[in-house]
Amino acid sequence: MALLLIRSDKNYDSWLKALTDQNSGVQVYTPETVENPVEITMALTWKAPKGSFSNYPNLKVIGSMGAGVDHLFDDPSLPQNVTLTRVVDEKLSSDMQEFVLARCLNHIKDLEYYSHLQQQVDWSPKQYRRVADVSVGILGFGTLGQAVGKKLANVGFKVSGWSHTRKEVSGIKSYTTAELDSFLATSEILICLLPLTDQTRNILNLELFRKLPEKAYLINVARGGHLNEADLIAALEEGLLSGAALDVFNREPLPKDHKFWKRNDISITPHVASMSSAGSVAPQVVENYHRMEYGSELMNVVSREKKY
Amino acid sequence: MALLLIRSDKNYDSWLKALTDQNSGVQVYTPETVENPVEITMALTWKAPKGSFSNYPNLKVIGSMGAGVDHLFDDPSLPQNVTLTRVVDEKLSSDMQEFVLARCLNHIKDLEYYSHLQQQVDWSPKQYRRVADVSVGILGFGTLGQAVGKKLANVGFKVSGWSHTRKEVSGIKSYTTAELDSFLATSEILICLLPLTDQTRNILNLELFRKLPEKAYLINVARGGHLNEADLIAALEEGLLSGAALDVFNREPLPKDHKFWKRNDISITPHVASMSSAGSVAPQVVENYHRMEYGSELMNVVSREKKY
Repeated sequence: MALLLIRSDKNYDSWLKALTDQNSGVQVYTPETVENPVEITMALTWKAPKGSFSNYPNLKVIGSMGAGVDHLFDDPSLPQNVTLTRVVDEKLSSDMQEFVLARCLNHIKDLEYYSHLQQQVDWSPKQYRRVADVSVGILGFGTLGQAVGKKLANVGFKVSGWSHTRKEVSGIKSYTTAELDSFLATSEILICLLPLTDQTRNILNLELFRKLPEKAYLINVARGGHLNEADLIAALEEGLLSGAALDVFNREPLPKDHKFWKRNDISITPHVASMSSAGSVAPQVVENYHRMEYGSELMNVVSREKKY
Repeated sequence: MALLLIRSDKNYDSWLKALTDQNSGVQVYTPETVENPVEITMALTWKAPKGSFSNYPNLKVIGSMGAGVDHLFDDPSLPQNVTLTRVVDEKLSSDMQEFVLARCLNHIKDLEYYSHLQQQVDWSPKQYRRVADVSVGILGFGTLGQAVGKKLANVGFKVSGWSHTRKEVSGIKSYTTAELDSFLATSEILICLLPLTDQTRNILNLELFRKLPEKAYLINVARGGHLNEADLIAALEEGLLSGAALDVFNREPLPKDHKFWKRNDISITPHVASMSSAGSVAPQVVENYHRMEYGSELMNVVSREKKY
């Protein structure tokens, strides 16, 4: 039995180091170093080149190196009889909390607006908004969404969440699928934290934007595929939205000639809201490897049906 | 007995409305509407033209419309036998908490850095810092400083405070006057919330900046007079500081030809961290007016010796 790392970017160093530091005795290979492909029983992967897994006939588990698993389903040759897992990184969750909080405060305190004014040598105070007066809606109220929601509520924002099943989170109103319109009507800041599935692809579109309060603000920290990019520009130009902060894009890096770059009402960050760290995730990878060895139930199994 | 409002900017409307809304029966005048100057026993002021008070022989109380009182002491003809007061606005305190939190998060999540990169169409992710790994020092750990410190500590920052007397605030290390160097050595983000006095004028100077950790970040939300502007530029150019966020300036509006405007490592906001609102302060002004009428002890009295 052995563990294989596969990444199309071949950035293996931090993962090799983190797994070695665990002193677990697990044999770790990369496609470049593996000698006996039949030994490989678990693969840990991030955006593996399509077809990669067909070289390893004894794979039992394929794990994503991050919280997102859409990259697994992008590969039509993903083996059918293999258990899929993802990582649940507490740091990833607290990092996302901090980033989203930073973005929400940045918006209501107009820090980006003043940064643009500064470049025009323009001193024009305007009345800020207060945290307690702002309603934030979290589209995708699973583990990560709830963590972010709790943080925002703790700082004083009015928070709602939207998810398939109703969640009991103190001080946060939970809406379910059929209540999307009511949820949107209260979301002055809309935060997308959905998994990317066939149901959620392009969910951030003009029809949805029309259901938000006037001059709402969009924060997308999930996947580029959630956003209809042309619809965002239309919504900004119609004045439906006051702005958007985007950390994820259909194509990353965002192409140099993309219209988003030049807009003051769109704030771009290069997919940095929350970066999985090999060090903080290595223990659960090793734990799942041992569970696989002993035939126990795995942690953080991904549903092939729901795709998350 | 009557109350007089005096402001050099003559923006009286919100104050007249807020005081009228209190239905307290207090007679309120401005220098333009007052008929009998001898009737005026209390003045409520913000940056009154120098010499204004000499027209009112029966003044017992002069109150600042804001938390800051340095504008009172700037007038050499300030009457000696009058009690000075300031306002303590809870909203002002929570607004300051929110603004400083926004600035700290904006800094450690590099939001301003990415905004500048966006203008250069540059996609260059860098590793963010985490709240729990950042030490924030609050220079001026009085009522406002403690409120800000508690908020930052609640979000997870490591917080210290510096003030004349040691303060007992759970989870926050309190340093006193003689311990300034130790306090500065731990302040990766230094927040100035001091009152402006002869002792604190120009306290933010090169000698102080040299005692901060390398690449520290300065946030000044107190008064422009705390900062030696030439020393800030020197400290940035020497690499002692990584940047500064300034909300207050020696001259406001900041003159168009000021060097600060063109620097990417200085973030300018036009004195908007926290704006006193007449509406939230009017009740305590009326209360103090009544206490003066009945000869009771006034609230929020300012020490002429300490000048705060």
